[in-house]
Parts: sequence; structure tokens; C-alpha cells
Amino acid sequence: MTNETTENQINQQMNDTNIDNLLFSDLLPANETGYEATRSFLLKIVDILLDFIKESSDRSTKIVDFHQPNQLKQLFDFTIPENPKNIQQILNDCKQCLKYQVKTGHPHYFNQLSCGLDIVSMAGEWLTATANTNMFTYEIAPIFILMEHFVLEKMRNIIGFPNGDSILAPGGAISNLYAIIVARHQMFPEYKTKGLKALPQLVLFTSEHSHYSTKGAGATCGFGTDNVIEVPVDANGRMIPEELERLVKESIEKGHRPFFVNCTCGTTVLGAFDPINPLADICAKYNMWLHIDAAWGGGCLLSRKHRHRLAGIERAQSVTWNPHKLMGTLLQCSTVHFKRDGLLIECNQMCADYLFQQDKHYDVSYDTGDKVIQCGRHNDIFKLWLMWRSKGDTGYEKHIDHLFDMTHYLVKRLKEEKDKFHLIWPEPECVNVCFWYIPTRLRNNEKNREWEQELGRITPLLKARMMNEGTLMVGYQPLGDKPNFFRNIISSSGVKPKDVDFLISEMDRLGHDL
Amino acid sequence: MTNETTENQINQQMNDTNIDNLLFSDLLPANETGYEATRSFLLKIVDILLDFIKESSDRSTKIVDFHQPNQLKQLFDFTIPENPKNIQQILNDCKQCLKYQVKTGHPHYFNQLSCGLDIVSMAGEWLTATANTNMFTYEIAPIFILMEHFVLEKMRNIIGFPNGDSILAPGGAISNLYAIIVARHQMFPEYKTKGLKALPQLVLFTSEHSHYSTKGAGATCGFGTDNVIEVPVDANGRMIPEELERLVKESIEKGHRPFFVNCTCGTTVLGAFDPINPLADICAKYNMWLHIDAAWGGGCLLSRKHRHRLAGIERAQSVTWNPHKLMGTLLQCSTVHFKRDGLLIECNQMCADYLFQQDKHYDVSYDTGDKVIQCGRHNDIFKLWLMWRSKGDTGYEKHIDHLFDMTHYLVKRLKEEKDKFHLIWPEPECVNVCFWYIPTRLRNNEKNREWEQELGRITPLLKARMMNEGTLMVGYQPLGDKPNFFRNIISSSGVKPKDVDFLISEMDRLGHDL
Repeated sequence: MTNETTENQINQQMNDTNIDNLLFSDLLPANETGYEATRSFLLKIVDILLDFIKESSDRSTKIVDFHQPNQLKQLFDFTIPENPKNIQQILNDCKQCLKYQVKTGHPHYFNQLSCGLDIVSMAGEWLTATANTNMFTYEIAPIFILMEHFVLEKMRNIIGFPNGDSILAPGGAISNLYAIIVARHQMFPEYKTKGLKALPQLVLFTSEHSHYSTKGAGATCGFGTDNVIEVPVDANGRMIPEELERLVKESIEKGHRPFFVNCTCGTTVLGAFDPINPLADICAKYNMWLHIDAAWGGGCLLSRKHRHRLAGIERAQSVTWNPHKLMGTLLQCSTVHFKRDGLLIECNQMCADYLFQQDKHYDVSYDTGDKVIQCGRHNDIFKLWLMWRSKGDTGYEKHIDHLFDMTHYLVKRLKEEKDKFHLIWPEPECVNVCFWYIPTRLRNNEKNREWEQELGRITPLLKARMMNEGTLMVGYQPLGDKPNFFRNIISSSGVKPKDVDFLISEMDRLGHDL
Repeated sequence: MTNETTENQINQQMNDTNIDNLLFSDLLPANETGYEATRSFLLKIVDILLDFIKESSDRSTKIVDFHQPNQLKQLFDFTIPENPKNIQQILNDCKQCLKYQVKTGHPHYFNQLSCGLDIVSMAGEWLTATANTNMFTYEIAPIFILMEHFVLEKMRNIIGFPNGDSILAPGGAISNLYAIIVARHQMFPEYKTKGLKALPQLVLFTSEHSHYSTKGAGATCGFGTDNVIEVPVDANGRMIPEELERLVKESIEKGHRPFFVNCTCGTTVLGAFDPINPLADICAKYNMWLHIDAAWGGGCLLSRKHRHRLAGIERAQSVTWNPHKLMGTLLQCSTVHFKRDGLLIECNQMCADYLFQQDKHYDVSYDTGDKVIQCGRHNDIFKLWLMWRSKGDTGYEKHIDHLFDMTHYLVKRLKEEKDKFHLIWPEPECVNVCFWYIPTRLRNNEKNREWEQELGRITPLLKARMMNEGTLMVGYQPLGDKPNFFRNIISSSGVKPKDVDFLISEMDRLGHDL
């Protein structure tokens, strides 16, 4: 058999029909001669993904082809078969799956704190998948472990923690949990062996508008949610320092020990920034740990124009900052930073020398496994590093400024259309814009409690129309005494003024007769 | 301008030089006409990834080009620049990064519980990245949320939990933590609001060979590590039921409340399986929650030949099972299952109605955000679902059986080469094989304590030689009174008998003169 014949045979084998009939066992690694088949399969997958990317950026396509759960169960074959499905079916599964998936990168998707699809970050995540490693030792993830060192050090420098330590965690809630357990460890190290029953009743404080993860960690870590005190906020959703001090004093009078204050920079709904400096003063006075949950607002630190919102951040002991939010990194990418080095390892190490040997032939201080509560960790750094390399600091600053510029444009347009839209907080601090849509019949009504209730009833109805049409996605929720209202988020770099204009006209088109 | 001219211009623009000089801002989504550039960029990324995949399956290539941390810092530019790097540099970054990364999919990589690179699972992870969604609501992840329902239900059926509930978590340690907090919630629901100080001292039990995550959760959740009691194991590394009962009684005598037993199915080092049935009897007798940490051994449930190792698993209240280990799914994919439905939500919900609205236009029982401690979650289901579709149940059974067949072949070969290798536990229960390598000078020595100590000193030296040559990776650790020994893992479907033969000859080549 000549070489030519072999090659023809391979080419023959590689034509569409033949690839499609292959099974997983014809691919690498099960079949060691399966490289060409593997390559063809992956290129077909990439074609499917490229189609999805193209559609996600095409303003004339739907964001979602929405179906109720019971319908979707009929439309899509979720079952696991007894016998293997061939490559054709696997490719078809991928196509079908994307058909029903929400296009979170679509410029008309304003629904979550994480919107958009950064292509470089996505390429980074493809590479991460292919490298398929675990972030617990330098031995098996050398380049990525060092990358974490460099990027996290840079982030600490931006915060104003010249020394310190950091870790990437699976989401902001776990980052906040890290801050709480590290604070507890530094202040009451005996808890680690003896447990909380050996300590006075510890108490945490967080604003009533803060993310529920502080309360959640209060339950998980054994403090009890009764001991996570919610501090009242002002009319703009910011924690009131005087109220914090009053509640701290109350707690001390009960014989409890206030030890932790969570200061939110960028609340979930309003995007409010708690005032750091007055809270830091109170923490210093009462010997409490100041944590800043900047999961949402942290990205502002990259912009000279917007970083003033976090003035005083360097006074905190710890900071949560999620690049997967304002910075547009792919999900998930969450970081938590500590002013003092050594705390993470002191808090979390269980001295599992069967996993983290101390006699390796390299400097094992680079191994992170004993610093975390997770043991193994997904590689969440590469997609951030690559994206930041592609943008540089100046490109990231432009990205952040663009999101705020688009937000200001939206606020301006909503004010212009004030018969159709009621801005609830007219001067947003972040890219959250909260408003009611007003259908025709309610435009001339008195703006009283009953009117608000009616707008609150209309909100989910309009959302349902948006979902069923699939043309626009904006989230909604109630908050305090405000019934359901829309909270629009601009965190995708793909959003342009024309998308803001579309948002306004489309809501009116869908909702005017409600 | 004719259409033809435009197309030529685009083609011109797409040639290598031009793409390479582009910036991120020329791609989607910042540049809405950037689809062709985006496509070219991604195809180049895929070429780089395909090269890595090809090398990873080429037995003549190195697994790792190892450098000490300080050297690697010189060789690779980790810095974040002030200004954007162009596409050429981004592509080069990806290439360089993979050059220094360990090829965890290489058939001579036997280093971790997770080895291998399943191509279908990897394709699934590429799609997951492109879909870039968050698993907290049906609204934004409809297809993936339902996929979780189907796959987790199937896993519960395999375990023997016909009802119940499950969740995917970021790694086995967090899965075990879920089991502990859910157990605490069911048995002592008042902890949630009042905290642990309102309860008697709760005590947990786990074997001295178990993963350190139970002890870690003991600290995190406020019990204190003194209250996580290590139960002695027998000569094969299995928890001794009589010792458990003795320690439970001791604890009760102290006035403490034993409430949780962690039974490991597949220990980290030996791969031992604690005896489920006797432990379940003791749990029933003393009203304790039985959790099974089958993060490692869970995959055996897919094989009729090997599932007997977990006989009695359906008697547990909860089970951790990591598809990213024996099942070969890409990192991370960890699941935790509960026999009783409703517990996860009761334990973890914080009623954040500003996030999880109850008045949506679909059945919100599908939303998972309020069931978890993380709020947002990475999509870890698609890579598992797609892989399982491609293999079917029969293909997965073959996969598991193949890993055990290769392990038996390794054990047989080591026994044949008993002058060069000393099997420490000659009849492994899982795919962990633990042994010392014996260099020439020690082959005729008496096998006493001193001889073992010397072999233990040699182990890290041989490991260093493997890393520096880059031809083979096998992990090592001490355990109990056994000094450093190798623990070989076969969890990659790419491993063939010739790779086992290579392992043996290569260790001898590198180590005989030590």
C-alpha cells in the first residue's frame, strides 16, 4: 500500500458521512490513531459555536426561543441512552441545545449582572478546558499558578493592599464566606479546634440591601442568621453609619461580640455604594473586621473616572471582586483579597501531607491546595489574564467607561420619555437602572401608592411578553416597599446607543396596552 | 462598490498578517462588523489547541517541560500591559502557555485522581464557555437546568435514591460540606437562626484515611476540628466499625451529640472502601446521618462487575460522587445527592425575593439559586451529559472496566518485577496502586524498617528525575507509618498495556542508580 493510498483512505474516511457515523471510541484518547477524526469532530463543533456567536451578535435574531419547562422536555431529548450515540447525534445535540439556550451575549440582553460574551475571554476558556488541570499544585498547573500570583498581586495593588494574599473562588458568595472565616480565624483562632461553642456569641453586620450571601454564610458557618444583623439604608440604598454604630452598641449590651462588618460596593438591585470611610472608622473603634463586598462594583477601580466610588477601600481587611461581572470575564471568575499575608493558609490548612508533600523538588509555597476550603479548584485565571492582556489597562478603563456612558445615555433617554417610564432612583451610582414601565392607561394617573402597586403588577406581565417574544431581556424584582420594578444592567461591551433606543421602543411596543 | 470587491477586501483583511495586527476592539462584540475577524481568530486558537491535543496523545512527546518557578517567571511574560496586545501576541500567549503546561491527557500521566482528556467532554466544555450562562434560574439557563434534573435523577436511581434531590458543587470538598450542613439542618433546624451556641456539642466521625474535607468543614461550619473524630482503619485502610461504635459511645459519655458519619468509598491514597452496611447499622442505632464520600469510587456504580464495592450505598442519607474522577469528565464536575427531597432548599434558602421572584411566568421550582450556598453556579452539567450521551451506559461500563483491567495488569506486572518494585498493598480495591521503587543497591537488603525509610527517601528523588525528564508523572506521599511511596492512578481511558509496560521500564531507567 502506498502512502498516497493511505492518505486517500484517510480523506475518504474524513468525509462528512463517515465522521458522522463514528463513535466516541473512534476518537482520541480511546483510539490512539483517531487524531484526524478528532480534528474533524472538533472543527464541526466550532462551526456550531461560531454560528451561535454570529447569531448572538445579530440584533435581528431573538435572544431566546422560550418554552415552558414541560414543553422543553418534549422538544429536546435529555435522556441518557443505553448504547453510544454517534458523532452526528452528538453534533445535533450541541446544535439543539444552543437553539434553546438564552444568548447572554446578545446586545439586547440586559438581564443579569453578567452580560456579554468577550471573545478573547471565551478563547481563554476553550484553552482552559483543553489544558484540563486542577489548580491545587504548581506541579500540575505551573503556568496557571504563577498567573494567579501575578494577576492577584496586580488586583491587590489596584485595591491598595501592597502585601497581602488572595484566592479565586467559585462565585462571590463563596468569596464572602472566605472573608468571614478568615476574619473569625484571625480574631478567634481557637474556634478552629474547639468550635463556636467555646467563643462568645459572634455577630456580623451587613446592610439590608446587601447580597444574601452574608446571611447565608452566617447559617453555614454556625453563627445563626439571628446574629447577622441587617443595618438600615438611606434613600439611595447606602448603609447608614449611625445605624451601624447603634446596632453594634446594642449587640455589645447584650453581651455579644460584634466582629465583622460587610460593606457593599455595588448592591445587587440599586448598585449603591456603602460609604467606606465612616464604616472603617466604626470598625476601628469597635475592633471589627471590615470586609468590602465589591463583587459587583469592583470593576470601577479600573477607571480613573469611576474609582472614587470606592474611596477608602484600602482601609478594609478584605475585598471581594468578581471579574465576571463589570469586567466581562466569562463565568465564573471571582476573587477575594486580604490585606495581611498568611491568613488564608492559617485558617484553612488541615496539614494533609498525603496531598501536599513538603519535600518536593520545587518551592511548595506555590501550592495553593492547603489555603482553600475546596481542595481542587477550576482554573478561573486564564480567561481573565488573556482578556486583560488583550485590553491592557487602558482598554479596560475604556470598557468600564463605556458601560457607564451607555448607562448615562439610558438614564437621559428614560427621563426624556418620562410619560412612559418612571425612574425610581433618578441618579444611579452604578450601571443598574431601576424603573417602572407605564402603559398608556396609567400615564395620566396620580403617582400614589395604588399607582405603584398597579405598575408592580404590570412588570411581570411585560417580562412574560418579552420572554415569549424573545426580543429583549431585563430583570425585575420588588425591594422594600417598592413593588416589582425593572432593573436594567449594562455590563456588555456590545451595547451601543441604538440598543438603548431599542430597549425603550421595544418595551413600549410590548407593553403599551397592558 | 460591487459585492465582489467587498468580498475581496474582506478576504484581504483576513489574511494572516492583517488578523494578527488586529486588536480585541476589532472583534465582536465591541466591533459589530467583526464576525469574520472573530472567526479567523477562533480558528487559529483551535489550531493551537489541536496541536496540544495531538501532542498529548503522542507517546513520544514529553508530558511536561518542567521549570522551577523562578525560571518560569523569566521564560514567560506574565505581566499585564498598559496598552492592548494585538491578536498575534494573544495567539502567541496561548501557544507559550501550553508549551509549559502539564499534559494531563498524556497516557503516561498517572499523577492525579483526574487523568485523561475526553474529547466529547472537552467539546461540551467549549460549548459551555460559549453559552456563558449561570445556573441559578431556568430563565437564563433553561436547557441546562433541565439537563441537571435528568442527569442527577439518573445518578440517584443508580445510587438507589428513587426520590431525593441533588446539586452540582465546585468540587468534592464542597459537596461533602453540603452533606454536613444539610444533615445539621435536618436534625437541628434551630441552628439556622440561633447558631451552634444554642445546640449541644455536635460531633462528626470520619476515618483516619478519609479526605481532609470533613475536618475542613468541621472548622468552616463551626464544630471545631476537635469534634471531627478520626476513626482507626484496618490494615487495608477501611474504617473499623467497632472502633466507630466505641468512639461514638465515648462521645456520648462526654455529653456530646454524635450526629454525622462520613463513610469513604475510595480513599485518596489507597482507594479503600469503608464497609457501608456495618456503618449504616451503627448510624441507625445511634440516630446519626450516614454520608458516603464516593467522590472517588462512585464511578464503580456504573459497572456490574465493580459496583459491589459500594453495596449498601442506598442506606446512606447522602452521597458525594465526582464524575470528574473515575468517569473522566472534565474538571470540575462534582455531585452530591440526598435521599430526601426538599432538604437542600430548607437548609440554604435565604428567601432573597429580590433575586428569586416567585411571580414569574414559569414554574419557578426549577430555579436552583436558593438551594445552594453559592448563588451563581458554573454550568458543570453539559460536559457530563454530552459525554454520557456519547458513551451510553454500556460505553461507560466498558470505560470503568477498562480502568480496572489496566490496573490489574499493572499489579500483575509489578508482582512479576518484584525485585524492582514493592507493592505495599498487594490487592488494591480501586485503581490506586501503591508501591516503592527499589534501586539496584537495595534489591537484596532485608525488608525492615530501615529499608523502608531508605525507599521513602528515594521516592521524591525519583519523582524529581521524572519531572525533569518529563516522560512520566506518578504521585507520591507518606501515609501513617509508611514513608513516601508512589501512588499510581489509572483513570485515563487512553492508558493501554504498553503504557503500563513503559511506566515500569521508565521508572527503572530513571531510578536504578539511586
